[in-house]
Amino acid sequence: MLLHGNAVVGQSGGPTAAINATLSGVIRGALDAKQKGIIGTLYGMRNGIEGFLSEDLVDLFKTFEDVSDLGTLEATPAAALGSCRRKLKSHEDDAPTYDRILEILKKYNIRYFFYIGGNDSMDTVLKLSRYAASHDYELRVVGVPKTIDNDLMATDHTPGFGSAAKFVATTVAEIVRDINVYTMDAVTIVEIMGRDAGWLTASAALASLNGEGPDLVYLPERVFDEERFINDVKDRLKDHPAILVAVSEGVRFADGEYVGAGTQSGAVDVFGHKYLAGTGKVLESIVKNRIGCKVRSIELSLTQRCASHMASLTDINESVTVGKGAVEAAISGKTGVMMTIERAVGEDYVTTVRCADIAGIANAIKTVPDEYINEDGNGITEAGIEYLKPLIMGELSLEYVNGLPKHFVI
Amino acid sequence: MLLHGNAVVGQSGGPTAAINATLSGVIRGALDAKQKGIIGTLYGMRNGIEGFLSEDLVDLFKTFEDVSDLGTLEATPAAALGSCRRKLKSHEDDAPTYDRILEILKKYNIRYFFYIGGNDSMDTVLKLSRYAASHDYELRVVGVPKTIDNDLMATDHTPGFGSAAKFVATTVAEIVRDINVYTMDAVTIVEIMGRDAGWLTASAALASLNGEGPDLVYLPERVFDEERFINDVKDRLKDHPAILVAVSEGVRFADGEYVGAGTQSGAVDVFGHKYLAGTGKVLESIVKNRIGCKVRSIELSLTQRCASHMASLTDINESVTVGKGAVEAAISGKTGVMMTIERAVGEDYVTTVRCADIAGIANAIKTVPDEYINEDGNGITEAGIEYLKPLIMGELSLEYVNGLPKHFVI
Repeated sequence: MLLHGNAVVGQSGGPTAAINATLSGVIRGALDAKQKGIIGTLYGMRNGIEGFLSEDLVDLFKTFEDVSDLGTLEATPAAALGSCRRKLKSHEDDAPTYDRILEILKKYNIRYFFYIGGNDSMDTVLKLSRYAASHDYELRVVGVPKTIDNDLMATDHTPGFGSAAKFVATTVAEIVRDINVYTMDAVTIVEIMGRDAGWLTASAALASLNGEGPDLVYLPERVFDEERFINDVKDRLKDHPAILVAVSEGVRFADGEYVGAGTQSGAVDVFGHKYLAGTGKVLESIVKNRIGCKVRSIELSLTQRCASHMASLTDINESVTVGKGAVEAAISGKTGVMMTIERAVGEDYVTTVRCADIAGIANAIKTVPDEYINEDGNGITEAGIEYLKPLIMGELSLEYVNGLPKHFVI
Repeated sequence: MLLHGNAVVGQSGGPTAAINATLSGVIRGALDAKQKGIIGTLYGMRNGIEGFLSEDLVDLFKTFEDVSDLGTLEATPAAALGSCRRKLKSHEDDAPTYDRILEILKKYNIRYFFYIGGNDSMDTVLKLSRYAASHDYELRVVGVPKTIDNDLMATDHTPGFGSAAKFVATTVAEIVRDINVYTMDAVTIVEIMGRDAGWLTASAALASLNGEGPDLVYLPERVFDEERFINDVKDRLKDHPAILVAVSEGVRFADGEYVGAGTQSGAVDVFGHKYLAGTGKVLESIVKNRIGCKVRSIELSLTQRCASHMASLTDINESVTVGKGAVEAAISGKTGVMMTIERAVGEDYVTTVRCADIAGIANAIKTVPDEYINEDGNGITEAGIEYLKPLIMGELSLEYVNGLPKHFVI
């Protein structure tokens, strides 16, 4: 039976180039539901659950009175509603926060709660849905995944990943052209995001689809061994002078230590994750000291997660669809679920939006499977390329103002 | 009177996103001259003057038998013919090299010599034109400028700069969106190329044309003062939490020391220029130690000079025109000149391709003028924005293969 009331949507975790496309999808879905008299108002919480708790809410139907602005929003990087890194504690450990949430839900008659985010955000969705269920307040809580890391369970891939992968592959292809202009031995190391899973680093290999790709690719799924690395590089240098190495920020030595910890040891983020920034620099030092040729490391840093100007049309379209799908799922009665993308078996790339029970998704990590990594642990297989390739297809037709892509600011 | 014979073209110095557009222009100009029976063959020297000396020459008319490939070449970053960093010594210091050049010129009946490059390459053009003139060999030597640094004299701007500026401004605009998602104080430092002149760093300010730009911009044209920097950052943090600083790799302290020298001291490149890589990291440490808020530095590194996927159409078109113009200038009798772009006075952006005597251009540097830098030395004026803006206008319509921009490899 239909649940009438208002809805709220929030964004959480690190930005992507597609998280606003998902927000747009939720708005489009809610607009449809408004037409049908199911949803009255769609609130946007600023800075995720933080803004919800402080009642920092915007009326998104008003903000997007001109629906054409949704197109601009879909091409705007990062979280237009703002984000936060707050992860809810359990109800036992922090009852006042849950009581406050319930109070606000009742005050605004919110019956639909959409939360766009990564792994930690799905944990929030899980806790909130369980709390509501046990407190006799009918609330439909739906998580909408986004992460450039592509490391969420139960979904073929995550919205946001394809765009980051397209930018990484494009940039690596351009760097390959750049470093090939000289004839002397030179090693260029490109450090790519992904603490626990190597999906985005693997996408650097897509550059090979259109010319030359990286010579070596190292993922956190394999132990990083300095001796093997030096041998790999020396071996490739026999063949040609300009070597490109793609490495994940999250690679570790056999003892479990992050390779990048050498320069950033000790620091942790609010979730207790180690803060990494030095993997490329550490590899640069290794090459300098042990091979002695010209070497440079490039950390793609924030650019890889916010490069909307190189977004994948496939990713943006799917992100919108998943956002819309979240509203439809909630209206149909789902709660405590995360939206997923299912890829059909077969030659053609066909996907279906579904949803899955969030318990078992939150706090688990999907790593790159063995069949996508070559035997030497320094490259991506044909099967891996086949998986990745459809995700970067197509380009957004961007609106430009003063020579720059137009962004929408809420 | 017309000079009949063959022609050769080379690329030298650091890559840009437009240096192949200039090569394409030279090829297009030479094809016209072939039609008129003036130029027989256009050779491409691989790796600049190095390849010329080893007779590593390709027949570019054959390579581009399908003229439509020139369009792909124009969208391909870095030097398709390869590059080198070799600067010719004076004839007095290295007569054998000059004798060898003359020998090859005669062997291939080369009467036109086009060299695409930056400051150091123009020096090669100057020496070669003087040598030929004094050795009774009729040779027309024309330099075609390219550099993302925009620091060559006698030209309003340099081919290659506009595309780098467009990528920098776009990326900074995207990073601004990214860092604004959180509410805590955080400083993000973007380090931009430009050893002696701040043109490319100044172009970060263009991001403001389409939303928010950088909060602070530091160019090598002004002494970098740590106290003023800390005060500037503290001052901006009073206003909003996410601060973006754009800084040139080439900023120096009052004593003339590079700010980045702290991490890369001593190293020099083959021209004796100090090798810099650490300016952003040094500023990051300063903020961490003296303000203590979250801080991150991003070095755009090679991406800013090879990002063809974000090339400026204005830049690419001008680069082609300048290349064609070089051939026309040489045929009309010019030698020992560098091609220049003149901007007409007035509201509208109108440019004319000309050439200027290369003596007085080579080895001189055009810095950002005072009227483009604000009084506090930490931002760009309206006049500066007005100068920069037309250079980033327009986008190439790119050809995509497998989701990636197509490149042409010679």
